[in-house]
Amino acid sequence: MAGKIGVSELVNSLGMSYKVLGRSDKQVLAPVPLGEGGKESLSFCTRTGSDALEMLRASKAGVVICSDKIRLAKKDYQEKTLIQVANPRLAFIRLLQQYFTNTPEYGIHPTAIIDPKARVGEKVFIGPYACIGECQIGEETIIQGNVHILSKTIIGKRVSIDAGTVIGTDGFGFERNEKGELEKFPQIGGVVIEDDVEIGSNVSIDRGSLANTIIGRGTKIDNLCHIAHNVVIGKHCVVIALSMIGGSTRIGDYSHVAPSASIMNKVELGKNVLVGLGAVVTKSVADNLVVKGVPAKPVRKNI
Amino acid sequence: MAGKIGVSELVNSLGMSYKVLGRSDKQVLAPVPLGEGGKESLSFCTRTGSDALEMLRASKAGVVICSDKIRLAKKDYQEKTLIQVANPRLAFIRLLQQYFTNTPEYGIHPTAIIDPKARVGEKVFIGPYACIGECQIGEETIIQGNVHILSKTIIGKRVSIDAGTVIGTDGFGFERNEKGELEKFPQIGGVVIEDDVEIGSNVSIDRGSLANTIIGRGTKIDNLCHIAHNVVIGKHCVVIALSMIGGSTRIGDYSHVAPSASIMNKVELGKNVLVGLGAVVTKSVADNLVVKGVPAKPVRKNI
Amino acid sequence: MAGKIGVSELVNSLGMSYKVLGRSDKQVLAPVPLGEGGKESLSFCTRTGSDALEMLRASKAGVVICSDKIRLAKKDYQEKTLIQVANPRLAFIRLLQQYFTNTPEYGIHPTAIIDPKARVGEKVFIGPYACIGECQIGEETIIQGNVHILSKTIIGKRVSIDAGTVIGTDGFGFERNEKGELEKFPQIGGVVIEDDVEIGSNVSIDRGSLANTIIGRGTKIDNLCHIAHNVVIGKHCVVIALSMIGGSTRIGDYSHVAPSASIMNKVELGKNVLVGLGAVVTKSVADNLVVKGVPAKPVRKNI
Repeated sequence: MAGKIGVSELVNSLGMSYKVLGRSDKQVLAPVPLGEGGKESLSFCTRTGSDALEMLRASKAGVVICSDKIRLAKKDYQEKTLIQVANPRLAFIRLLQQYFTNTPEYGIHPTAIIDPKARVGEKVFIGPYACIGECQIGEETIIQGNVHILSKTIIGKRVSIDAGTVIGTDGFGFERNEKGELEKFPQIGGVVIEDDVEIGSNVSIDRGSLANTIIGRGTKIDNLCHIAHNVVIGKHCVVIALSMIGGSTRIGDYSHVAPSASIMNKVELGKNVLVGLGAVVTKSVADNLVVKGVPAKPVRKNI
Repeated sequence: MAGKIGVSELVNSLGMSYKVLGRSDKQVLAPVPLGEGGKESLSFCTRTGSDALEMLRASKAGVVICSDKIRLAKKDYQEKTLIQVANPRLAFIRLLQQYFTNTPEYGIHPTAIIDPKARVGEKVFIGPYACIGECQIGEETIIQGNVHILSKTIIGKRVSIDAGTVIGTDGFGFERNEKGELEKFPQIGGVVIEDDVEIGSNVSIDRGSLANTIIGRGTKIDNLCHIAHNVVIGKHCVVIALSMIGGSTRIGDYSHVAPSASIMNKVELGKNVLVGLGAVVTKSVADNLVVKGVPAKPVRKNI
Repeated sequence: MAGKIGVSELVNSLGMSYKVLGRSDKQVLAPVPLGEGGKESLSFCTRTGSDALEMLRASKAGVVICSDKIRLAKKDYQEKTLIQVANPRLAFIRLLQQYFTNTPEYGIHPTAIIDPKARVGEKVFIGPYACIGECQIGEETIIQGNVHILSKTIIGKRVSIDAGTVIGTDGFGFERNEKGELEKFPQIGGVVIEDDVEIGSNVSIDRGSLANTIIGRGTKIDNLCHIAHNVVIGKHCVVIALSMIGGSTRIGDYSHVAPSASIMNKVELGKNVLVGLGAVVTKSVADNLVVKGVPAKPVRKNI
């Protein structure tokens, strides 16, 4: 956490074009939701419609990042400083990252149990009561406490895994025999989690049956999701809370799975697919489509 | 657990009007489901329709609590004692609470890891392998083992949290940059859990992004629910198993979310709303409505 | 794990009729997915349609188990050995079990916390940071680390429970009183898990309210499922990921609950019922039916 930061320092950290309206000698101390805080607060507004101006006027923060699509009059920035950018949320995020978050503290908690054959990179955090099998863990990776990772898991760099998550358990593979009893398909594959993946709490990711389950670079998985055996998720996808990805299903890069969605096993989702909230996907989906409903059907192009 | 308890003692503990039919000198030893047990058993029947009398006759328990809407003849309570009340289940619950449950044992397990800056009230239970960050925990609160609570969480009095639950992890906030990669919205808010809240096992509750995620007084959350960042749940609500409450969504007091429901982010549910089993709520819902289906639609008033 | 195994040894372990086409003096070293591996690999193909022959030809494995419904010509098994059976996946499973899995190592991790009154059978595995209350655990049962099992749980023989699973917490039973507040129905029943049951990671199984929650012999439960209080699941069922079984619901033997399904409380599913992906079951279902949709409706006989 920083102390007071001046507007000119803030805008230098945006990494994008901006325009400052109003006094540029202001200083901010804390980020707040729009409508809260006071003169030394920094906030943001993503709206561009007719309500945007009203929300900006009602805002109490001294400095507000807003869209460059809003037409502003002098009276709008007499009391406060406005920073106009193309993507206000992204701009705000970057300032939070730069000035208002703690640097992660690396280290391995003495109660973490790590297989002596595991290969653990430099600068990692492994929290209390985590259990790590014969795995590989890249540097700057953060594994919270009470996480359980079984052997044959390969974890990249800058990965983050929240508490209660379990990775590398046996996939759900059974076959009924002549007597109707279930015989188990031994699961001997592993799990590969590429760089910059983030995984929420209480997530379950199964090992592959023969090959690997793979989570592509930069993909983010929210709490309580189930990723079955042999699933391959592409790069920079999001899979949001309580979603279910069935066995051997493949999801293309940049796709977005909304919460509580359920995707059947052995289907293929293209790149940049958007699966709607609570959708039940029973068939493969081509690139760049939005699918919704039960069963899910394409409703439009995803742009 | 008590020994034998007489009918007259039982009815004095009901805290509601009652009428005893049959011998009042009976004694009971154990509570049982309707249809099981024997002469020294206590059971209850919530039915009021034509099948209620039949079920009462078939019951083997010596003492049965039933609805005061049932018309009973002398032969119905010759063998057994019947206690008639307006809400038999509530009456039975109060007798269970009074006579047939163990008093909780307080204490902090030596393996629980608690941040030295945490403020923990008198008379709490914290189970084995629980991890508690810089939090505040009110008195008579019970936190089972393997629970993981991160810093900036404020927990009230008489709260109960079951094993495997994770509270205070980062909410799922990302924004795609120009390259389509996901940049993380740092999550710097906290979680407030008010008095008398109960939370099941393997629940995930995220910290707020800038403000707090709030669970109102007396609300009960079942197993495997996801409560996203900035959610505000009112007082005396129920959120049942595997339900998903999206980010920044607000739920009014006395509302009821049935299992496997999914409520979109940024919507507002009024007071006394009932969300049906598996419903997918994509819009705000006014007070006192029952909504069902995918997408959820109002079907009637909630009374 | 074995070294090289000859075809004649393999077929002797199948426990079913077979026919070997091609050279029977081949040896295999590792199992692979169809299409991968090389001459010393073993694979399988479940297809029987027109694409089966093509897939077999494209396969690089030296030995492939395939269906006896495929008509094969000599050129199909000149390069590779084909083993024809009625159920290729079951045949492959048995070879994996026999030759390509590690024998489980039994033992109780020193960090596992087990109630001194628990009765634990011979030859069990209990992993790190597992917590076991006053329970009964049969022999050859495997309980992974970070599992939490409360008292009054009876676990049979050869049961497997994955990390993060919580068994025996209080069921979700509340009743609103005159003030609209929720009073808790004390949960004093237990959980019975019969022989040969397998339970995935992050599963929640609640104790019965007065009687027991029961999981029948040979039933398999996948990750992140919720089994509410008083549920009775029959023998040899499967309940797949993120499914919700409501309180007091009963499921007959050999039934199949697909992922993300939600089954209302107090309903009765017959034997050999199949509940489709994401289905929301609100009524009882007779034997041998397939039900799908929201709300679920019978669509055909289950054969």
